[in-house]
Amino acid sequence: MTTDTQTAPAPTSDKDRVKIFDTTLRDGEQCPGASMTLDEKLQVAELLDEMGVDIIEAGFPIASNGDFEAVVEIAKRVENAVVAGLARAIAGDIARAGEAVRHAEQPRIHTFVSTSPIHLAHQMRKSEDEVVDIIQATVAQARNLVEDVEWSAMDATRTSIEYLCRCVDQAIKAGATTINLPDTVGYATPEEYEAMFRDIRERVPDSDKAVFSVHCHDDLGLAVANSLAGVKGGARQVECTINGLGERAGNASLEEIVMAIKTRADAMPYVTGVNSQMLMRASRLVSAVSAFPVQYNKAIVGKNAFAHESGIHQDGMLKNTETYEIMRPEDVGVKETSLVMGKHSGRHAFREKLASLGYELGDNALEDAFRRFKDLADKKKHVFDEDIEALVEDEVATAGEAVKLAALTVIAGTGGPQRATITLDIDGRHETREASGDGPVDAIFNAIKMVIDHNATLTLYQVGAVTQGTDAQAEVSVRLEEAGKVVTGRGADTDTMVASAKAYLSAVNKLTLKRERLHAQAV
Amino acid sequence: MTTDTQTAPAPTSDKDRVKIFDTTLRDGEQCPGASMTLDEKLQVAELLDEMGVDIIEAGFPIASNGDFEAVVEIAKRVENAVVAGLARAIAGDIARAGEAVRHAEQPRIHTFVSTSPIHLAHQMRKSEDEVVDIIQATVAQARNLVEDVEWSAMDATRTSIEYLCRCVDQAIKAGATTINLPDTVGYATPEEYEAMFRDIRERVPDSDKAVFSVHCHDDLGLAVANSLAGVKGGARQVECTINGLGERAGNASLEEIVMAIKTRADAMPYVTGVNSQMLMRASRLVSAVSAFPVQYNKAIVGKNAFAHESGIHQDGMLKNTETYEIMRPEDVGVKETSLVMGKHSGRHAFREKLASLGYELGDNALEDAFRRFKDLADKKKHVFDEDIEALVEDEVATAGEAVKLAALTVIAGTGGPQRATITLDIDGRHETREASGDGPVDAIFNAIKMVIDHNATLTLYQVGAVTQGTDAQAEVSVRLEEAGKVVTGRGADTDTMVASAKAYLSAVNKLTLKRERLHAQAV
Repeated sequence: MTTDTQTAPAPTSDKDRVKIFDTTLRDGEQCPGASMTLDEKLQVAELLDEMGVDIIEAGFPIASNGDFEAVVEIAKRVENAVVAGLARAIAGDIARAGEAVRHAEQPRIHTFVSTSPIHLAHQMRKSEDEVVDIIQATVAQARNLVEDVEWSAMDATRTSIEYLCRCVDQAIKAGATTINLPDTVGYATPEEYEAMFRDIRERVPDSDKAVFSVHCHDDLGLAVANSLAGVKGGARQVECTINGLGERAGNASLEEIVMAIKTRADAMPYVTGVNSQMLMRASRLVSAVSAFPVQYNKAIVGKNAFAHESGIHQDGMLKNTETYEIMRPEDVGVKETSLVMGKHSGRHAFREKLASLGYELGDNALEDAFRRFKDLADKKKHVFDEDIEALVEDEVATAGEAVKLAALTVIAGTGGPQRATITLDIDGRHETREASGDGPVDAIFNAIKMVIDHNATLTLYQVGAVTQGTDAQAEVSVRLEEAGKVVTGRGADTDTMVASAKAYLSAVNKLTLKRERLHAQAV
Repeated sequence: MTTDTQTAPAPTSDKDRVKIFDTTLRDGEQCPGASMTLDEKLQVAELLDEMGVDIIEAGFPIASNGDFEAVVEIAKRVENAVVAGLARAIAGDIARAGEAVRHAEQPRIHTFVSTSPIHLAHQMRKSEDEVVDIIQATVAQARNLVEDVEWSAMDATRTSIEYLCRCVDQAIKAGATTINLPDTVGYATPEEYEAMFRDIRERVPDSDKAVFSVHCHDDLGLAVANSLAGVKGGARQVECTINGLGERAGNASLEEIVMAIKTRADAMPYVTGVNSQMLMRASRLVSAVSAFPVQYNKAIVGKNAFAHESGIHQDGMLKNTETYEIMRPEDVGVKETSLVMGKHSGRHAFREKLASLGYELGDNALEDAFRRFKDLADKKKHVFDEDIEALVEDEVATAGEAVKLAALTVIAGTGGPQRATITLDIDGRHETREASGDGPVDAIFNAIKMVIDHNATLTLYQVGAVTQGTDAQAEVSVRLEEAGKVVTGRGADTDTMVASAKAYLSAVNKLTLKRERLHAQAV
């Protein structure tokens, strides 16, 4: 056995190539609280494309005009990956998905229908024969629109093999090029899942005409193992999400799938096209835009994933890193936090640093970011990579916002009531309000509400220090819900209160924008 | 296939009973930043015992006097579970472990040695024969002290089957009653792990004299699948931790193991003795004392684990919950957040509510908690279960602290510099200081430092709202490191700044206590 990830054998044939289908922007974004703005989706899609993901599922075009627009924009922007749009087994869904993905270099329509008895009986109220007819009609319709059609058997793992064979056979005959058999409720064991793929591929005569695909949920903690078992059973596409984002316990984690295949190439002779060194960046971006924290002991991308504490392990690590390390941190893009810049760093160095972190800003944005960097360097002794990332992301997040923070004073403490005086810049016009509250954050939010009225409920308020030390920049995330609309705002500052105000304002700005969009849709 | 967890068949024999060995307090606590105080460890141990865990690994007695003391106290306190203490294959370790666990009703010594070539060559610098002799001597020594001896082959999954057989054979001959074969580096696949147990059990003549045990790490996301595969291969003990706490990517999650076995009893005909309805409480307690947040989409205990957002899923759920749910939230102890009490609730109702949440407080502590509940009800419209939990835990966390917060005023905002004026109560004597800082939290911490001097570095500052709404109580966690010592403090208040001050003070108090303890040890 070798633990050197560099000696993974080259694939012996195309049959060993496993396609990575990322559904962070569809199945991930659909989980409660994770909804992203168009701009955030574009950032994620571009990173996935650059990282070497084979297929990017960009959204569910029929779900809303926002979803449709996002799929269109992503389709236009993505250069290498296939761009997929989801559609139920309904003619209108498929037409809308086709309309959205046709802007892509390589468009795919992904249509699905339930096949399990429990779904047929309770949700669809259709007979088995009726569903087979639906598969024929909808897959054929999709295939008339695009060459690349994926068909999914929702709740496949709770469907009888016999009926599943009939459905798969029909889908392939109607032109499906990828057959996805999801474990929708996260119920399968690895053996069952592997056996299902083996059986179906053996029994369906034309099974070699399609690529089979796994799609697993982590309800019992088995999503990654099930996915790999499906590949062993003959699947060559894995549907997964960054950080395992997704409904309930989430989907299989892209980073775990990619690193398991890479690290254990001896036991699993497959390869993916993903550049593993970008995994950490992708994880951080998705965590930031969804405001879903990654737990410290999350495999691959958790901040402890490569940390050793016990004396015994440290001792072994000092003698030979292989004693306890099966992957090298640099393989997944983990770099030591490095002291990068201080108050004497110039514009040129700053631009170079941004480039090395993967940011390319236009001249105005760069100038603005540089000014804020200088302000930060005045307040903070050491400026780390993470500080610069937070600063630029704050810049990106607040760009183009209608209402900006101009000034804030907060008085907090045990004496109560806590008070906040805030000045907001609304298209150049300044408005100042004072409010009290239960706690200073409540006071700030109340003051903002006096200027921009809304009925949203706060469902998340979260502070994470982006670097260590008491002078760290605080990164605050705020999530608001109003009549089913969910928005997330972020703000960064060395002053937690200022960061809170920025985050809340950012969320309120998005809410206003969403209202306008919905209004436009209603017309 | 059935998804009704209530119809799990009774075990057909003792052979189907899988023992749950919880190592949250040893392997979990050993991960960077998760160290717990004695009091916190006792809370966790009592909950594990009540929950029906079979074996509680309480610590590593030789590691420090604090570890030794914790094992002794847990051994005295635990009523039903076996209490294990860890020991390297060193006479002094084993003697110390024996001394610590002898206070238990059912004591176990757990001793381990590395068996893989890479560990033998680089870490131990011993030959295979020498290690076999060590196993004989150390297991025999342990067996002279207690009846119940577990032996672990560290890095078993990277050891040849032949040599592993020799070692296991020797350990059983020397008196080991449990044989643990860990996947120390999280490297195995389920098939390899299952095959290893099958092979070893077939080849070692006396293998039926010991219970075999799995111990898996999640570096590739396979810990739960590997554990279950080991059970399929014949293991009947699973080593795991609450929330999957542990070094690097952590250990297999206890809650995922228990619920996978319970939910899929049709495919895995085993039972555990764990009361699954206590899983959520255990998860919350461990998350709170370790200050390790649980990610929203964590299986079983994440706050999204039972949440459905997409229209399709919601529709199915309304028609029949089984369409998308394989477990019922109440099976793992998830209850709807319920509005419980307001400012008119009396002392009796408060005591009843505490009892229903699992807290039993003495008269003084109850009186104190009730007073704080009334203060909270004045500030906050709705008082939820979680608020009361935060309040009581804050009470427990700050009880017996030498230095307490008496008053605080903070001025924050964009005008800077931010200032804090703090009054601390040191055994009844009040001291007031004022400090400025980069941000209000920095100012508060600076002011506290002017009273209690220390050289600790802040390595974590985290704010989580315990309930929804802008008037939510903020729960702040602060982690400090000083010369290798790590302490975590928590504080709750509707004012984030007050909660920050409390959390920091709590951490500093613990640091002072640790210093005194270390001083006592040096004497």
